[in-house]
Amino acid sequence: MKRRVFLTTTALTTASILAGCKREESSKYRVNINKKRKVEIKLSTSWPANFPIMGEGVNRFAKKVNLASDGEIEIKVYPKNILVPALGVFDACSSGQIDAFHSGPYYWKGKNPAFSLFGGFPFGFISNEMGAWMHFGGGLELWRELYAKYNLYPLLGGNTDVQMGGWFRKEIKSLKDLKGLKMRIPGLGGEVVAKLGVNPVLLPAGEIYTALERGTIDATEWVGPALDIRMGFYKVAKYYYSGFHEPGSVLELTFNKKFWDSLSKDHQNIITSCANELNSTMVFDFQAQNAKALKELKKKDVILKNWPDEIIKEAKKALFMVIEEQSKKSEDFKRVWKNIEPFWKANRDWTSLGLKNYLNMR
Amino acid sequence: MKRRVFLTTTALTTASILAGCKREESSKYRVNINKKRKVEIKLSTSWPANFPIMGEGVNRFAKKVNLASDGEIEIKVYPKNILVPALGVFDACSSGQIDAFHSGPYYWKGKNPAFSLFGGFPFGFISNEMGAWMHFGGGLELWRELYAKYNLYPLLGGNTDVQMGGWFRKEIKSLKDLKGLKMRIPGLGGEVVAKLGVNPVLLPAGEIYTALERGTIDATEWVGPALDIRMGFYKVAKYYYSGFHEPGSVLELTFNKKFWDSLSKDHQNIITSCANELNSTMVFDFQAQNAKALKELKKKDVILKNWPDEIIKEAKKALFMVIEEQSKKSEDFKRVWKNIEPFWKANRDWTSLGLKNYLNMR
Repeated sequence: MKRRVFLTTTALTTASILAGCKREESSKYRVNINKKRKVEIKLSTSWPANFPIMGEGVNRFAKKVNLASDGEIEIKVYPKNILVPALGVFDACSSGQIDAFHSGPYYWKGKNPAFSLFGGFPFGFISNEMGAWMHFGGGLELWRELYAKYNLYPLLGGNTDVQMGGWFRKEIKSLKDLKGLKMRIPGLGGEVVAKLGVNPVLLPAGEIYTALERGTIDATEWVGPALDIRMGFYKVAKYYYSGFHEPGSVLELTFNKKFWDSLSKDHQNIITSCANELNSTMVFDFQAQNAKALKELKKKDVILKNWPDEIIKEAKKALFMVIEEQSKKSEDFKRVWKNIEPFWKANRDWTSLGLKNYLNMR
Repeated sequence: MKRRVFLTTTALTTASILAGCKREESSKYRVNINKKRKVEIKLSTSWPANFPIMGEGVNRFAKKVNLASDGEIEIKVYPKNILVPALGVFDACSSGQIDAFHSGPYYWKGKNPAFSLFGGFPFGFISNEMGAWMHFGGGLELWRELYAKYNLYPLLGGNTDVQMGGWFRKEIKSLKDLKGLKMRIPGLGGEVVAKLGVNPVLLPAGEIYTALERGTIDATEWVGPALDIRMGFYKVAKYYYSGFHEPGSVLELTFNKKFWDSLSKDHQNIITSCANELNSTMVFDFQAQNAKALKELKKKDVILKNWPDEIIKEAKKALFMVIEEQSKKSEDFKRVWKNIEPFWKANRDWTSLGLKNYLNMR
């Protein structure tokens, strides 16, 4: 009997250890000792469900994270207004109501004026320069330091690439034509054109088309060909201007910091690498879809325009006035700008010599 | 004694199972039932050890993959000429002597002329357009189909971004000045300038400086400010031209296909996402370091130049002649070019309207 007891006990002991190891079908060799490795992440976006490029990008990111983690990390993506309002995601994530969000840092300038700089600025970084500043110029460190005060941890989560200047009902031939013009334009861009006499208006996305059609506003900016064509603006405003106000707007994948810190190192790394992947594939997607949409727009009698020199010149002056004002109001803004300025100047020089000269030759 | 034997045996059995499960310190909850999840990848590069930006990028990638896989995947990076010669990596990986390599597809045009197109072409894609074509225009599928014939599976593994046109001992004022000029310039760029009368020369990296100093060659291209300044060319050739011959050269992370197919889905996904991450962070690194190096070069009396219009015009004609010749020689080249051409035209239009107009305003 002793022999039998021995065998039984051994078998039980082994079985209970193996039960603890619990083999999962999806994985050839891995077993989890318990279910604690399963992580579910509630992520809200500021976009409607399956919003082209931006929303689709977040869905792609969630799927990639799930595959790379062998099913351990499940990110549930909630479009705007399901768990929290579109622009309530910052506060909801800060408080822990949601674990993460996808949005744009320029929406939070009311919290801290410096946040708008992490999103980009008029005449500022193009997407690859922004990536250079974030990863190799100290940008990410600064951003994380300032967000930590809100219990938040940001990752780069995409970029719109160069945006178009917007749709105008009438041609803009000189500075004079901007005086009193009512235009839907948010952020630092709005503050800059306000100094040129434009009257910046804020309108929810669903109301812009009708306002433009009726002449309640004279102009609107949105993003670029791919998203603008879906809004139908070309039907009611024929003049489409190249842009200087949002040359590479950052989208963020931001986490509740306590939640982030509770994740294992490998999970943090999977999420970070997949976010960096999304950051560039979203730019590629914008590139491909903008090119396609521009071909369509050209069939619709859109008149493509560039800004008159005097407007560009005045807008640059206005930018420095806005930066000076903001720097006086906010120590953080001043500090971030001081970090950005030399990097911006050096990178502008290189981009002019390399990329700009190339594009002008091509 | 039987009791003692029982305990000892149980202890041993349990111990051996736990040894199989082998808890790792870095992971809070995971255990591995055996060591089969451990994957070691032998990866050779075409670069010297810790080569700036490109080699450093591969090291960063290897570390990221290790972290994201919780130590399961270990990529051993071998610089050129350790396991195989710099340009022996393609064959060595194809045969399974190594598992993977980091290099550039334009080196393999001798295997198949079409391969050079996956690396870029004169007046072709900038890095974000290349990403757009690869991910959203069918490029990756075509590339993988053609590499599969060599038992290879390619991933995007970086991009040099716009390269400079090179260093010239004398100013180039007209087409006439190019006739008979001896220049170190490889690839499709070399074939294009050959049609303008340049005599393209191939030289190992270590011999270029001396050849340029002695006047054995009249000019050389390399990459951009960050890598060029280290080569010291500015000391012996003062004229530094903006470039059109390599506007966004692709670097590849390519795997032996049988080895790739043997990896678990989650490991494949970790490697793919980390490669896509590297693909963009390398561009950011080039951007930041080129900007820094250009500031230094400006202190060294370098004369920055742009090409005369007649040279640009003739070079474009030459490009189409080269493409026609290659298309006649190779069905694969013809097929890949047919896929590229409409995408290139549409994306060039959008990039001109958005990015080029912006850079000219900035």
